[in-house]
Amino acid sequence: MSLKHHADRLKAESFKTLVKARAGKAMVSAPGWQADLSRHYLDEAAETELAKAAAEKDLGGAIERLFAGETVNPSEGRAALHWALRAKAPAFEAASAVRDSVKTADAFAARIADGHATTPSGKPFSAVVHIGIGGSDFGPRLVADAFHDQRLPKLELRYCANLDPLDLDLALEGLDPTRTLIVGVSKSFGTEETLYNLSRARAWVKAAVGDKWAHHFVLVTANPPRAIAWLGTDDGTILDLPETVGGRFSIWSAGSVACSIALESDVMDAFRAGAADMDAHVQTAPVGENLAIRLALLDYWNSSFMGFGARALLAYSRRLKLLPAYLQQLEMESNGKSVGPDGESVGMETAPLLWGGEGTIGQHSYHQWLHQSPAIMPTEFVLAPGATDDAEGVTGLTAHALAQAEVLANGRTLEEVRAEEPELPIEIAAQKVHAGGRPSTFLHAPSLDPYRLGSLIALFEHRTYLAGILWGVNSFDQWGVERGKTMAGRLKTALSGGEKADDPVTASLIAHLND
Amino acid sequence: MSLKHHADRLKAESFKTLVKARAGKAMVSAPGWQADLSRHYLDEAAETELAKAAAEKDLGGAIERLFAGETVNPSEGRAALHWALRAKAPAFEAASAVRDSVKTADAFAARIADGHATTPSGKPFSAVVHIGIGGSDFGPRLVADAFHDQRLPKLELRYCANLDPLDLDLALEGLDPTRTLIVGVSKSFGTEETLYNLSRARAWVKAAVGDKWAHHFVLVTANPPRAIAWLGTDDGTILDLPETVGGRFSIWSAGSVACSIALESDVMDAFRAGAADMDAHVQTAPVGENLAIRLALLDYWNSSFMGFGARALLAYSRRLKLLPAYLQQLEMESNGKSVGPDGESVGMETAPLLWGGEGTIGQHSYHQWLHQSPAIMPTEFVLAPGATDDAEGVTGLTAHALAQAEVLANGRTLEEVRAEEPELPIEIAAQKVHAGGRPSTFLHAPSLDPYRLGSLIALFEHRTYLAGILWGVNSFDQWGVERGKTMAGRLKTALSGGEKADDPVTASLIAHLND
Repeated sequence: MSLKHHADRLKAESFKTLVKARAGKAMVSAPGWQADLSRHYLDEAAETELAKAAAEKDLGGAIERLFAGETVNPSEGRAALHWALRAKAPAFEAASAVRDSVKTADAFAARIADGHATTPSGKPFSAVVHIGIGGSDFGPRLVADAFHDQRLPKLELRYCANLDPLDLDLALEGLDPTRTLIVGVSKSFGTEETLYNLSRARAWVKAAVGDKWAHHFVLVTANPPRAIAWLGTDDGTILDLPETVGGRFSIWSAGSVACSIALESDVMDAFRAGAADMDAHVQTAPVGENLAIRLALLDYWNSSFMGFGARALLAYSRRLKLLPAYLQQLEMESNGKSVGPDGESVGMETAPLLWGGEGTIGQHSYHQWLHQSPAIMPTEFVLAPGATDDAEGVTGLTAHALAQAEVLANGRTLEEVRAEEPELPIEIAAQKVHAGGRPSTFLHAPSLDPYRLGSLIALFEHRTYLAGILWGVNSFDQWGVERGKTMAGRLKTALSGGEKADDPVTASLIAHLND
Repeated sequence: MSLKHHADRLKAESFKTLVKARAGKAMVSAPGWQADLSRHYLDEAAETELAKAAAEKDLGGAIERLFAGETVNPSEGRAALHWALRAKAPAFEAASAVRDSVKTADAFAARIADGHATTPSGKPFSAVVHIGIGGSDFGPRLVADAFHDQRLPKLELRYCANLDPLDLDLALEGLDPTRTLIVGVSKSFGTEETLYNLSRARAWVKAAVGDKWAHHFVLVTANPPRAIAWLGTDDGTILDLPETVGGRFSIWSAGSVACSIALESDVMDAFRAGAADMDAHVQTAPVGENLAIRLALLDYWNSSFMGFGARALLAYSRRLKLLPAYLQQLEMESNGKSVGPDGESVGMETAPLLWGGEGTIGQHSYHQWLHQSPAIMPTEFVLAPGATDDAEGVTGLTAHALAQAEVLANGRTLEEVRAEEPELPIEIAAQKVHAGGRPSTFLHAPSLDPYRLGSLIALFEHRTYLAGILWGVNSFDQWGVERGKTMAGRLKTALSGGEKADDPVTASLIAHLND
């Protein structure tokens, strides 16, 4: 029986009955995390078929190819060596070179943090402004926010990504340009937003310190010649972002040097150690106990066979506030595709829309919709309290995460409402019914520390790659972002009164904008 | 022909041809904003049918009932008077009382801001910590972030919402308890998260200032007796949150007193003035020129007839960074329902999932998916630069917003790719194809100021209410959030080793958590 047939069969079954049969039997452990996968529209027959798909699509081989440094990004003819950035003992030379790029960055960061590297006038830096966008921004922002309480005193860390001029204005506001270090991250060193903001930051520093401005700049890139040309002097620092590391996998790289500077020195080490341990898990655990494979199979199942087009990530941890935005890029940019490396349509739904937020906050917002809208939305709970020093808060956070998952799954029938609240008018009782049948995955850890954030993100990286293999897309390219850039370039001419835009709607919008 | 038939007919048509016919003919103006609604699967016949739906569901009458203070929230037997919070000349007594609650809060805020109201030891307050969650948090957080550059110097503003104990730890970090004002907002004064965080904040202030601690507390609530009991003294300040204002409509209320204290004094006035002007527009503009009605009809059309289950909000403005999270609550909590006030199922899809983020940042993330995943996602562009002092950034931001909307609509065929890039191997050319056909709405303003944020949010409030009327749900209640709270209460017992949880998955999770 095909996966499609299993899905059609299981959609017609009672979700409660399916889940009851799986309760306690779909637990998977991985470094730092425990996962319960029981609340899904699955049974043993469907799981067997999914395991067959894993074998047919050779997920095991895909993992081997990744870690052997083979070309897993065929459209760009590259290996994907992001895992080497955190490798404890890189097994081959290219991987060692990748690992070394991080060591160089860490050594540089340590000198800034301990005050050995100073401003040209001999003072320690008092602020770091990180300029980047997308894969050169989400990662360091996530880590710095997650461990905001573990930052060094006397060093302010700011971020800037947006083309809106206000973004840099806010990032620089109140800072002393003579004591500010600017970190610019762009893999190509051709990213419009980043070059725009770097140029404005350069003018700001230059106006205060004059000729020695480049001492205030650290540029992280895979294109050093362009960065050197931009500096026009040897005074700045260039750090290496390896060509084999995609932007959305670069959180472990020199691109996070601002975090290495501004956070306590053990944070980034523990973060990378967690990821390295997850790499080992993914390489060695058999299919049934391999959490990355199990999650990838669930993504494939829920999206392409059950027809759920989205997944909500509900992070019950203050430290994971920025995780949904981070994973949006990782999953949706990697697998939001319809055509495989051979140029053929893959012929099925691929990556779901990933969205979400911070629990319990979402309970006061979109959870109404999760529970009672006609749409069925699979959810993923990630429970890992940020601070554990106050038992009441931790128990509350935990109880709410568990309760939400339970109610989403089980719902509440009209009969149950009437039995529990017999005094209610029938029309109000009807409004208290929950349909239930909402599948969920429940990941948990006793607390969220740098090690566990590292292992969690590595887990999601592998899951994304493996889901891409199941869908038959190349997770490491992103052809779909180019067209908009080309078109924006053309429209700038139209906006400044040049040639009229070809598209009639765009043309009429421009006429209004220029009014 | 029914709307369903029109939708089936239009799905089969060429999107480009449909849009070409509408270009320049679907522009609507409203206070502060211009909207282009041409890029949708619509034509004149379908628009006529939608206008009929507006008449049949009596949207005009719904607007009148709202502003007349009639009971538009039948399940709770209440009017919805959030619009009165910003009314220039409230037309009846209950509306005046609602308006007065804001004036009292503003007067209180002015005394704190100008240093007339001080700490018990006679010093000006140096920090305000806002504690609330959901509707008592998103609004003030949005406004304060949007106008961060328009805050008063020497007054730090912090927020805390989450049950994770880290959230309050971070909010209080580095503040001086003897000079900190705590603002607690809870309509019922029974919100678990808010009471938890308020109690911890009380202990923190008390430890530093002793008996006079309550002078440091401002409680905003519709339940003053509970708040007074919590204080146990007359020393604190109680501000009124009217019973007729729902949490997710309370951004205009005393619940935003932290913004009134911390931002320049004209910000909140201009914010409310923009909303009041939008109220007038919605009350007076005829259906075809009424932007709230037009947007509500589009929501109804796209969700219930075209079958698009989600909408992406792409805010090209640094000031609107938190807008998607704000609107998620407004729309999804208001209309994420399946049952009408009469207790009957509405029998169609209702509110779409609302998600999104900040442009151009999203272009480096989920736009790959928007362009090339098999899913068709309607998008809503909101272009309004935060700062206009640097032309290059503003032009870039504008060009990108226009370009994205155009490419989403028009796509790029294989023939176009091959004509423009004939040297590409066919399998790469195929990966550069965009299917197009993605509908979008384009809202724009030359810049984002408090007036325009006010008018924009009021517009979305009315759109939400009117879409609720079209779907036949009560936008002002939220029965679906209760069950999770009840269940969490029960699970706390199980977590502390009491009775075992009934649900087998929850029970097995608790066993692991307690390991």
